[in-house]
Amino acid sequence: MTNQNVLFFGDGHADGDASQKILLGSKGANLAEMTKIGLPVPPGFTISTNVCSYFYKNEKKYPANLKTDVAKAIEQMNSSLKNLGCTFGNSENPLLVSVRSGAPVSMPGMMDTVLNLGLNDQTVEGLIKASGDARFAYDSYRRFVMMYSNVVLGVSTSFFESELEEMKADAKVEEDTELTADQLKLLVKRFKLVLQEHTGKIFPENPHEQLWGAISAVFQSWMNPRAITYRSINNIPQDYGTAVNVQAMVYGNMGNNCATGVAFTRDPSTGDNKFFGEFLINAQGEDVVSGIRTPHPINEESFNDSNKEKKTLSEAMSDAYADLVLTYKKLEKHYGDMQDIEFTIQNGKLFLLQTRSGKRTAAAAVTIAVDMVNEGLIDKRAAIQRVTPGQLDNLLHPRLDPNAKIDLLTRGLPASPGAVSGKVVFDPDTAEDWVREKDEAVILVRIETSPEDIHGMNVARGILTARGGMTSHAAVVARGMGKSCVAGCSELHISYANKSMMVGGREFKEGDLLTLDGTTGRVMLGEVPTIFPELKGSFHTFMSWVDEFRKLKVRCNADSPKDSQVALDFGAEGIGLCRTEHMFFEEDRIGEVRKMILAEDGHTRKEALANILPMQRGDFHGIFKVMQGKPVTIRLLDPPLHEFLPHELEEVKRLAAEMGIDEASLRRRKELLHEFNPMLGHRGCRLGISFPEIYRMQVRAIMEAACRLKKEESQKIEPEIMVPLVGAWKELAYIRAYCADEIQQVFEEQGIELPYSIGTMIELPRAALTADQIAHDDQGKADFFSFGTNDLTQTTYGLSRDDAGSFLGNYLDRGLYSEDPFVSVDMDGVGELMKIATQKAKQVKPDMKLGICGEHGGEAKSVHFCHTVGLDYVSCSPYRVPVARLAAAHAAMGTTSIGLLP
Amino acid sequence: MTNQNVLFFGDGHADGDASQKILLGSKGANLAEMTKIGLPVPPGFTISTNVCSYFYKNEKKYPANLKTDVAKAIEQMNSSLKNLGCTFGNSENPLLVSVRSGAPVSMPGMMDTVLNLGLNDQTVEGLIKASGDARFAYDSYRRFVMMYSNVVLGVSTSFFESELEEMKADAKVEEDTELTADQLKLLVKRFKLVLQEHTGKIFPENPHEQLWGAISAVFQSWMNPRAITYRSINNIPQDYGTAVNVQAMVYGNMGNNCATGVAFTRDPSTGDNKFFGEFLINAQGEDVVSGIRTPHPINEESFNDSNKEKKTLSEAMSDAYADLVLTYKKLEKHYGDMQDIEFTIQNGKLFLLQTRSGKRTAAAAVTIAVDMVNEGLIDKRAAIQRVTPGQLDNLLHPRLDPNAKIDLLTRGLPASPGAVSGKVVFDPDTAEDWVREKDEAVILVRIETSPEDIHGMNVARGILTARGGMTSHAAVVARGMGKSCVAGCSELHISYANKSMMVGGREFKEGDLLTLDGTTGRVMLGEVPTIFPELKGSFHTFMSWVDEFRKLKVRCNADSPKDSQVALDFGAEGIGLCRTEHMFFEEDRIGEVRKMILAEDGHTRKEALANILPMQRGDFHGIFKVMQGKPVTIRLLDPPLHEFLPHELEEVKRLAAEMGIDEASLRRRKELLHEFNPMLGHRGCRLGISFPEIYRMQVRAIMEAACRLKKEESQKIEPEIMVPLVGAWKELAYIRAYCADEIQQVFEEQGIELPYSIGTMIELPRAALTADQIAHDDQGKADFFSFGTNDLTQTTYGLSRDDAGSFLGNYLDRGLYSEDPFVSVDMDGVGELMKIATQKAKQVKPDMKLGICGEHGGEAKSVHFCHTVGLDYVSCSPYRVPVARLAAAHAAMGTTSIGLLP
Repeated sequence: MTNQNVLFFGDGHADGDASQKILLGSKGANLAEMTKIGLPVPPGFTISTNVCSYFYKNEKKYPANLKTDVAKAIEQMNSSLKNLGCTFGNSENPLLVSVRSGAPVSMPGMMDTVLNLGLNDQTVEGLIKASGDARFAYDSYRRFVMMYSNVVLGVSTSFFESELEEMKADAKVEEDTELTADQLKLLVKRFKLVLQEHTGKIFPENPHEQLWGAISAVFQSWMNPRAITYRSINNIPQDYGTAVNVQAMVYGNMGNNCATGVAFTRDPSTGDNKFFGEFLINAQGEDVVSGIRTPHPINEESFNDSNKEKKTLSEAMSDAYADLVLTYKKLEKHYGDMQDIEFTIQNGKLFLLQTRSGKRTAAAAVTIAVDMVNEGLIDKRAAIQRVTPGQLDNLLHPRLDPNAKIDLLTRGLPASPGAVSGKVVFDPDTAEDWVREKDEAVILVRIETSPEDIHGMNVARGILTARGGMTSHAAVVARGMGKSCVAGCSELHISYANKSMMVGGREFKEGDLLTLDGTTGRVMLGEVPTIFPELKGSFHTFMSWVDEFRKLKVRCNADSPKDSQVALDFGAEGIGLCRTEHMFFEEDRIGEVRKMILAEDGHTRKEALANILPMQRGDFHGIFKVMQGKPVTIRLLDPPLHEFLPHELEEVKRLAAEMGIDEASLRRRKELLHEFNPMLGHRGCRLGISFPEIYRMQVRAIMEAACRLKKEESQKIEPEIMVPLVGAWKELAYIRAYCADEIQQVFEEQGIELPYSIGTMIELPRAALTADQIAHDDQGKADFFSFGTNDLTQTTYGLSRDDAGSFLGNYLDRGLYSEDPFVSVDMDGVGELMKIATQKAKQVKPDMKLGICGEHGGEAKSVHFCHTVGLDYVSCSPYRVPVARLAAAHAAMGTTSIGLLP
Repeated sequence: MTNQNVLFFGDGHADGDASQKILLGSKGANLAEMTKIGLPVPPGFTISTNVCSYFYKNEKKYPANLKTDVAKAIEQMNSSLKNLGCTFGNSENPLLVSVRSGAPVSMPGMMDTVLNLGLNDQTVEGLIKASGDARFAYDSYRRFVMMYSNVVLGVSTSFFESELEEMKADAKVEEDTELTADQLKLLVKRFKLVLQEHTGKIFPENPHEQLWGAISAVFQSWMNPRAITYRSINNIPQDYGTAVNVQAMVYGNMGNNCATGVAFTRDPSTGDNKFFGEFLINAQGEDVVSGIRTPHPINEESFNDSNKEKKTLSEAMSDAYADLVLTYKKLEKHYGDMQDIEFTIQNGKLFLLQTRSGKRTAAAAVTIAVDMVNEGLIDKRAAIQRVTPGQLDNLLHPRLDPNAKIDLLTRGLPASPGAVSGKVVFDPDTAEDWVREKDEAVILVRIETSPEDIHGMNVARGILTARGGMTSHAAVVARGMGKSCVAGCSELHISYANKSMMVGGREFKEGDLLTLDGTTGRVMLGEVPTIFPELKGSFHTFMSWVDEFRKLKVRCNADSPKDSQVALDFGAEGIGLCRTEHMFFEEDRIGEVRKMILAEDGHTRKEALANILPMQRGDFHGIFKVMQGKPVTIRLLDPPLHEFLPHELEEVKRLAAEMGIDEASLRRRKELLHEFNPMLGHRGCRLGISFPEIYRMQVRAIMEAACRLKKEESQKIEPEIMVPLVGAWKELAYIRAYCADEIQQVFEEQGIELPYSIGTMIELPRAALTADQIAHDDQGKADFFSFGTNDLTQTTYGLSRDDAGSFLGNYLDRGLYSEDPFVSVDMDGVGELMKIATQKAKQVKPDMKLGICGEHGGEAKSVHFCHTVGLDYVSCSPYRVPVARLAAAHAAMGTTSIGLLP
């Protein structure tokens, strides 16, 4: 058995491995593992958590053999670096070490670290010789003295800092870097005096004494108060203890056979499988990143406009480069992912300082995942976990060119993703005119949108509103259309009258250029360049793998043949929500709809409905046709009727004239329809109960369209009719009865019968609580349920999505809501109701078809929740379908998405 | 053992008793019981359900001895009527019988009945002789032939009816009663021919044959399809079977020693313990009721203006009257309740035809219940069950004089009980002027009311609105004030501009007289006389008994010292809901409140709040003082701020001037506060999170008032501070923290400490679903919960109480809601959430104090539900406190209220 107190790693050999996190701490175990698989990690050793336990159980004493063990490990370290010639304490060519804590669970910043340990008045001369840089050596030395005095001997850094300030003042310089080697050398002296003044102690010149001081400090830091508090908050056992990692320090700035650099194992922008990176000879890591010197390419594949004249690493240090190539290949094989690495070459020998999964663009994420499967590096399962739903969402929308400069005006809610630029207009008619007649790109800016704005939204590139939340009208419609939208931008002050808006003291007029980023909620001045990642073959391959894993079906919310086609192209397996009211708003029919609503008598109403019938039939026929037999759920009319009436004076006048009634009586009827809380008013199935003729017309239109298509193309077709806002089973029973009657009439007229089902939204708490009654064949007899989580969230929280804007931000800022409940399903409240409803429904009908059609259906965490609850499908806007498919696959794998990208 | 197939009853003896409902059916068992306790019930016998079972198990045959048993029972019947001299089949003096079904569970109208059985061409002559009325005898005969032919022999009644029509046409008369004895005699002949034509059968003249035919028909009717369906719907076992009751028919119109009458054992108007009733010599029951002849009083206590000259029954038939007195005393003793009886005297012998609990006024109900306890007839428990909550409610409000003629204009919702008359006015200012200056009684008529109308509501006698439901602003405020209100009267068309309203084609101007009945929702023309039952000593005695039984505490919803005093007088045990916003509306402070709301900067807001503080402190001081140490729950500000802003142009102008800002910017701020769905908007604790300074001021006012009172009167005082609209535990935790801080400051300033608690309303589904989190000491740390079932109903149903008016009526008419959920707690939805919340809260805090402060707290069925769920108290408007106390007692007894009055 290997020594369990001191475990060496270096030069391809390690006493421990990755499985020993409890003994070695997380860092120690990883260093051992990396060494073991042959990565050129600087050598060192780990003093295990056993020693820490012993230390605290034995009045801060060490086990008997520890000194011997450590001495042996130092010898191994010296020996593994023999071709560099440095050894620990050697004043000609000193080996310096870092001493770091490392607990079994990461506790970032909680415990202590000492760097450059081993420097003293002799070894600093050796370092000068080895590096040829006295300033570097003394700078390291003065830092070490300060760090050691602070961490090990307990002197506050502020005393050293004021000494440093004094020195700079004397030297009449402003920056630390302007101090010369001699001045730094003097500073080391003064630092040592500071130490003596405050502790009475002399700075230990003996590197071994330094080392034991540092080891003891790390062990002591396990019990410092902030570490104890951190563990207690994060449920980390207090008796785990920490390990101590002592590791050789290496330098890329010790001469011209030294270098330092960074590299990606694949292209993080495109995902292309090419090794690529930058480096500098005789330099420190910071030099590469800071841009003071232009870095060299590591190989020809890393050439770009500014560096293609420079010598590559493969030319300059071919052996080290060859090692680097071997290393990166090992890394990818071992981690099964693209790595972002930092390396240093000291005296021609390559060392790996850091490796981590590399950040990448959405397109690169997909390409890399697919390529790695094809290369046999990972399996499909792993590939799917490599891409987050958020990345996929980015992939489907244009985004800001990451290199573009932006002038940020304000921020709103990221209501519908994508970056777009255009001229601002403040009303839908102007939007339409400018687009149609002048072919302008426009951004429609509204205080809030209403269904009357649809034609303007339809032509605009993006939508910007001052009010409303993530599920406001603007947000929902924009997402449905796949258009960029920034909503609830409360800093905007819009004046329709002046056709202008104020933001941050600046005024914008109609026609001024703005850019919206609906992915982040930013509003920017002028036209910011955007890029649209193309969907490559790898995207389709990736999505086909996704579908192999998921259990949830994914449908779309679509109201037109066009949207349905988009959704089909994105892999939708049906329509989960076809809203019939959007059809009502189309220009050629809104007039008849209004006549229907304002009809003073049954005859006029029937006449108007008769005129609407063929239009709706046409809509449904088109959708059924596109959907090729896939399931289509059509929701009967839902919004309160007053939503369809004109608001503007002019329009009211025109309508009155058209209908041949006087304006005052039209206004009176309109006023009668006014509601204090329309969301809780005369809408949904309540309309179907007050005006059965409306739902009868809709059901007739659906079934006539279906029968027609069946005759034309003998296509399989089984319409799903969905009744909204049911709260009591008798509502559904009542509506179901007359719908079934109307359908039977259609069948008789058409001489053909079709299977169909009638179900309901579960969008009221009462519907969830009485789901068994609504489902039961002797009561509501619902054939299916679809959770309408937008409304369910509103009623469960008693929170209007249109009005929440004024305080929701404050709530999120203060952490009163951990997330916007209109974005991600609130598990404790809304989710609880979904569970109750699912359980009650399945008690009555074990095979009840259950879905979700709220906006949450396209949000990853919510999709995961739907999977857990046991729904059959989620339904979301067409542009969210791929996201939902991926989230469903992740859910089926029992994992949430990994955190590759923020 | 008595015969189990045929059981006799009559003349003080019965083979069965009330316990034998399965054997004798419900009717048979009661007839036996009544006979047994000595009531003069006409004799008869019951053929038991055993025979029915035998009949169906043995191919519709009877048990061997049945004929003998029936013959024996007929003899007993004859014998028990020997002093009348009539016997079954006797053609000189025939005994006629009724044959009725009677199952163990009542199945009204489901099975068959035959009356006057025993008539034939001979016995009809005997009946003429006995009654001296040939027309009566032949009318009975023709009815019997038709009924027998239909029920026993299966001929449709329509054939007989057309024969009757033909006869009337021939006789040139319009009414059946205009046919003479001879014409009726002829009709009997024709009916017999009809029977023969349709069945080939001759009408059976033999009374025994008639009887067996009828018995068989009743047994067969057990299995008729509508009876089978009825049993299956009502879960009545199909094998119960029916009994057959054969009972002697008696007549009060067979001569001058015959009579018929009705009586109450006590005065149904006042409850006074006096026997009182009316009768007619030689008459049928209908004659007494119809008013064709003026009835005689049965005794001197029954004298009134129109009958005091007439001979009483005690004078005319002293023996029968003495029997009647004995009978009514027995009845009261047996049933322990005031009875409404029908009696007949045939040839001097008294028969009781019917007895039932008598309908009575609310005042009488209480008086009778109390008197009967004092008389030892019933115990307190029974007394409490004799009065319904509805009666008690009537008792507390004026009602229409039941003798008054009314001209009904329209109906609305019975929003707050009581009948009042007054002159209509259409705005609150006029209401105030007319009452203050002209001392007029006014009825305030509004489309809907808003908090700005309070001063007008306060002076009006009653309130009438065109819109709004049972928990609309008008309804809630009116109930709180104990004022009559008819709400949501959709047939009213009100024009504020013309100061007039149209209803049913009639126009009413300001100043026209109307009467409202808030108990029934009626609106009537002119001034209808009303009566106000005085609360007698019996009321207070009764209520003190009620309190001995109930487990639930009863608090009141009161916002002022005056209301609190009213509630205390009605027995309230604390305040469950003190709404602070009503205080905000008072004339002397609304200005400061508006300044506070519209403040553009923190300084102005603080200044306004500082001005409001002493006023609120005064309010609370007054309430605490009146409540004498009883618990007081104060709800922090709840409504959205825009509710406090002026609507009228004039007022906006005035306010702008007062605040020294321009009108446009005031209007702009007002518009910023506008909400689409205020019920789901920026209100409740959301205000407390956006503007902590408001809640801090309120909490300070509460605690300063409490400290002051403690110092002044060293009164026990423990304020309960209630945070509204909590949906997530962090909201409460956040508000609780700063309230506790403010309270600590007050304690330090005052140099005194008081116990206090901070709890929350449960009025959102999410609050109910996460009640454990809200209650948990490490999370929300609520000290108590109060169910706000008004809002909870709104959010659970997704139904605005202010907007529901337009369709709720339709829902109730169609039975889609079995009851208005704003009136009676919806057990399946809202109730389910209450159960969930209670259970979750008690998991965390077993002793958590739980109450209800929604309008449901004063409704009997809801109170019962609260008892079942395990709440500690209910809270309701002051005028509903007695109702809640009674309902709570009924609930504790495990009974709902008995159905004495509709």
